[in-house]
Amino acid sequence: MPSDAQAGASPRVPVELNHASRLVNHGPTVLISTEAGGRRNVMAAAWSMPVEFTPPRIAVVIDKSTFTREQVAATGMLALNLPCRALADLTYTVGSVSGRDDASSPADKFDRYGIGSFTGPVLGLPLVSGCVGWLECRVIAEPHTEQAYDTFFVEVVSAQADPRVFSHGHWHPDPAHPELHTLHHFGAGLFGVAAETVQGRVLD
Amino acid sequence: MPSDAQAGASPRVPVELNHASRLVNHGPTVLISTEAGGRRNVMAAAWSMPVEFTPPRIAVVIDKSTFTREQVAATGMLALNLPCRALADLTYTVGSVSGRDDASSPADKFDRYGIGSFTGPVLGLPLVSGCVGWLECRVIAEPHTEQAYDTFFVEVVSAQADPRVFSHGHWHPDPAHPELHTLHHFGAGLFGVAAETVQGRVLD
Repeated sequence: MPSDAQAGASPRVPVELNHASRLVNHGPTVLISTEAGGRRNVMAAAWSMPVEFTPPRIAVVIDKSTFTREQVAATGMLALNLPCRALADLTYTVGSVSGRDDASSPADKFDRYGIGSFTGPVLGLPLVSGCVGWLECRVIAEPHTEQAYDTFFVEVVSAQADPRVFSHGHWHPDPAHPELHTLHHFGAGLFGVAAETVQGRVLD
Repeated sequence: MPSDAQAGASPRVPVELNHASRLVNHGPTVLISTEAGGRRNVMAAAWSMPVEFTPPRIAVVIDKSTFTREQVAATGMLALNLPCRALADLTYTVGSVSGRDDASSPADKFDRYGIGSFTGPVLGLPLVSGCVGWLECRVIAEPHTEQAYDTFFVEVVSAQADPRVFSHGHWHPDPAHPELHTLHHFGAGLFGVAAETVQGRVLD
């Protein structure tokens, strides 16, 4: 397993919890990372959204067929990692290949694809190196919506971001760092990249 | 009220319902339009996500303080309109000014800001001209999540898109039409624009 240093660690700083939902306010594709029974997993998820700023709560869809779902059911914990343009292939790959495919192998998806990781500060979850944001979350049990809509409500308990694109509670995607812009999955591996910005103004 | 023609109608084509969730797969900010008691309203919402492709179902957060929430409660219907870069000011404006502010006035937000509209084909809801996608939706009653998380689950009953950027069930954001790229709200009126794309490939 590549260490954080080997994978080329990106800088990261803590984000105040009341700013955590802002990390996913703009609809980026996320990587859900989990660990249960001594085994890690990571998958891509295009379907997530904040539902509250304070406390910081997020809804995320996790299909019943996924290995991630089993791990979340076992632990009640997950991490959301925000991949950037540099991780487009990795994001599509971990969204296309199930961690269950190699469940009989000692190699999890982190090992198989050489994904660097580091340990989350509150829940100890494996976080994905090279992302631009990281949120450790506890599941708020909502059996009906989990069953009917595959929708999990979670509360953020730790948040970090790459200060080159997010600091003091605000995104500032820098044109000088195009590789750090977030991914937005159109479908079939085609991602929109939030590569430009526009400042809206309130009309009279 | 500007007619569709006066507002410079964008082309639109029907989208098959089993492709409707793809319109919001990449996390765009949406405009929620409603009509109840003879009064229309429109607001911006950054927080929505698909939860199912077939049937096409979407979750969307609508705060209890909004006039939209009252209208949705009264009718069980709403439309999601997908604004594009050309509508950044309009999107920020209708997200910043409540329709309740002028509830005693005959002018709704459409009239006040000169927003063109046309009538939805199934539910008859007012749809916003100049957007690049339009979804009419019926609310699936989920009182607990509506109350606890302001989260509404809806099912799409009609879908249309601007064929210059979405056709045959797929997004193809054209560099030749930068004004039609979707908006992704970072916060405080700053939108990311999905102005570039990257095709992910599955790693070995």
